[in-house]
Amino acid sequence: MTLDDLPTPCLVLDRTILRRNIAAMAAALARHGIPLRPHMKTAKSIDVARLALAGQPGGITVSTLAEAEYFAAHGIADILYAVGITPQKLDSVARLNADGADIAVLTDDLDTAAAIAAHPHPPRTLIEIDSGEARGGLAPDDAHLLALAARLGPSLAGVMTHAGHSYAGRTPEDMARIAETERAGVVRAAERLRAAGHPAPIVSMGSSPTALAAARLDGITEVRAGVYMFGDLFQAEIGTHQIDDIAVTVLASVIGRRPGQLLVDAGGLALSKDRSTEAAPKDWGFGRVLDRTGRPAYGDAMIRRAYQEHGIVVPDPAHPFDLPIGARIRIAPNHTCMTAAAHDRYYVVDDSGSDIVAVWPRVNGW
Amino acid sequence: MTLDDLPTPCLVLDRTILRRNIAAMAAALARHGIPLRPHMKTAKSIDVARLALAGQPGGITVSTLAEAEYFAAHGIADILYAVGITPQKLDSVARLNADGADIAVLTDDLDTAAAIAAHPHPPRTLIEIDSGEARGGLAPDDAHLLALAARLGPSLAGVMTHAGHSYAGRTPEDMARIAETERAGVVRAAERLRAAGHPAPIVSMGSSPTALAAARLDGITEVRAGVYMFGDLFQAEIGTHQIDDIAVTVLASVIGRRPGQLLVDAGGLALSKDRSTEAAPKDWGFGRVLDRTGRPAYGDAMIRRAYQEHGIVVPDPAHPFDLPIGARIRIAPNHTCMTAAAHDRYYVVDDSGSDIVAVWPRVNGW
Repeated sequence: MTLDDLPTPCLVLDRTILRRNIAAMAAALARHGIPLRPHMKTAKSIDVARLALAGQPGGITVSTLAEAEYFAAHGIADILYAVGITPQKLDSVARLNADGADIAVLTDDLDTAAAIAAHPHPPRTLIEIDSGEARGGLAPDDAHLLALAARLGPSLAGVMTHAGHSYAGRTPEDMARIAETERAGVVRAAERLRAAGHPAPIVSMGSSPTALAAARLDGITEVRAGVYMFGDLFQAEIGTHQIDDIAVTVLASVIGRRPGQLLVDAGGLALSKDRSTEAAPKDWGFGRVLDRTGRPAYGDAMIRRAYQEHGIVVPDPAHPFDLPIGARIRIAPNHTCMTAAAHDRYYVVDDSGSDIVAVWPRVNGW
Repeated sequence: MTLDDLPTPCLVLDRTILRRNIAAMAAALARHGIPLRPHMKTAKSIDVARLALAGQPGGITVSTLAEAEYFAAHGIADILYAVGITPQKLDSVARLNADGADIAVLTDDLDTAAAIAAHPHPPRTLIEIDSGEARGGLAPDDAHLLALAARLGPSLAGVMTHAGHSYAGRTPEDMARIAETERAGVVRAAERLRAAGHPAPIVSMGSSPTALAAARLDGITEVRAGVYMFGDLFQAEIGTHQIDDIAVTVLASVIGRRPGQLLVDAGGLALSKDRSTEAAPKDWGFGRVLDRTGRPAYGDAMIRRAYQEHGIVVPDPAHPFDLPIGARIRIAPNHTCMTAAAHDRYYVVDDSGSDIVAVWPRVNGW
């Protein structure tokens, strides 16, 4: 099977680039001697998880209970479900843990901590710390931190934070500064807990940009990151990787032609409506247009508009090109987590080749 | 099973509103005596198709081959695959047609027309006409129209157009004017074909706004529309329906609280990153926040930011509210086609009730 045999639109994963990205993250953390707990929310694939876990302790991060169930069924026990838990979801976690998983949850809420402590099978729980994103979590010096730890009692397993605001950074210096804020904040919270007699064996931080840019990780016990595996146009714009390090692209067919534009069969559903690069130095519309093997043959051609099943390709005036109906292109995504989630599998190639060397399923939904 | 038993995030479909929307479209077209070929790209559900087909001839429109296969397997033979065909996709269409379907395709391309004519089992084919959207299709007076018909030969079944630019309309007068341009354009193309001796039994037009607003449909043989079944915030903003006519919402749980905002477990994946209302009179962010039963209890509260699995609810200052962790809300989507596609099923309620009266699967992907 080759790229020409695939139904379009579909998702193509270049394993050579994937391996390179995984090696780059492993090397960055090896400098500090800190292990990685890869976040599988981007890849949602056991095959990718196995590559990402090479040389690491074996624990992963997930963003949905569907991911937790899927990865547990594939033999990964040590799972951090890194979205704030609700009391109603504790039974699902307990059921998976009774079947052999060891899923840890997170909270920043006193009532939820009480519900965890009162559950007949409470999971290990991390307290979520806000290191500047202002999404979830307590500030490191929040007055409620110790009360929350007391409520959790023996379920308390440590602290975690995610410097999602690193996505607003634009330079290596920005990223290093945000990484240090992230590190210092979550370590400060752990120190407060320990000073009050609470255990905090896990001190977890991470986002792809800060994991790569951190100058020091003292006091951190593990780093989480996910999007680095695949990369995307937005991550390239903020310097997480180079633009030729994007491992996942959408294969599409030309379905229409008119002067100055091509129509392809990848629209808002196949690409997602994510517009991350709108605020980046270079706005890539709904994705960068590459040739059939993923090479940047068309300059800055991009998907300028996206309807449900139609994408409009506007060529780069400096690199005009034309293709017949049925010809194939690849589209690098703005935000790979969003784009990949529209697809139920990866068609895997090696080294920009045309042969499909594997088909890897994804676990979507909740 | 009630709303409180559902895992979140998930998709809730209010069948009472769905039936009302379907009845409104049927009544609008009955005034003209023109049948409806419902577009199933929004609902992607045989259960919804059966409701939408009540009193209609029985043909549907689809946007993917996956939909065509699914609906054919559920007994619907007369299917228009309304995205420009490629030569490579003809074998899939022929295979479904050999199994009992009667899928028609569309093209605006001379080489593709030749490929259709040369196929051993050519499908019925409509010529796509551009009535002003400038996406796909030939202009009604395009010099290539007759040559395209000649190339198609006996496969030619008529003409179709979609006035997608009606989404830029803002008043009933805009919509009626665009509907008349749509009607006149596709009828003009049919007349040119007939004058040259080509058959054009099918003259198909449609979008939800123009189907409802058309003052006359002379010369049209069928109307296509899809989003009217469910509605959404954008369609409410452009006047396709009232804001309380939105049948599909996302059920979400509160997972975080801080002053001035709530965090819920419906983010960019569960809601889509669609920002249709950004250019509408009222910008609803990533969706309008309703109470657990779908009622507008919180004023203009909306999802202001959407991360992969986190949505940030910003209350309406005029209607402040607070909810505990685990409490449930419903979110009306900007663009229901995009939001629904993230979910594999509908949990069906009647009349804003809490009881789940049915679970209807969807056919996603390609």
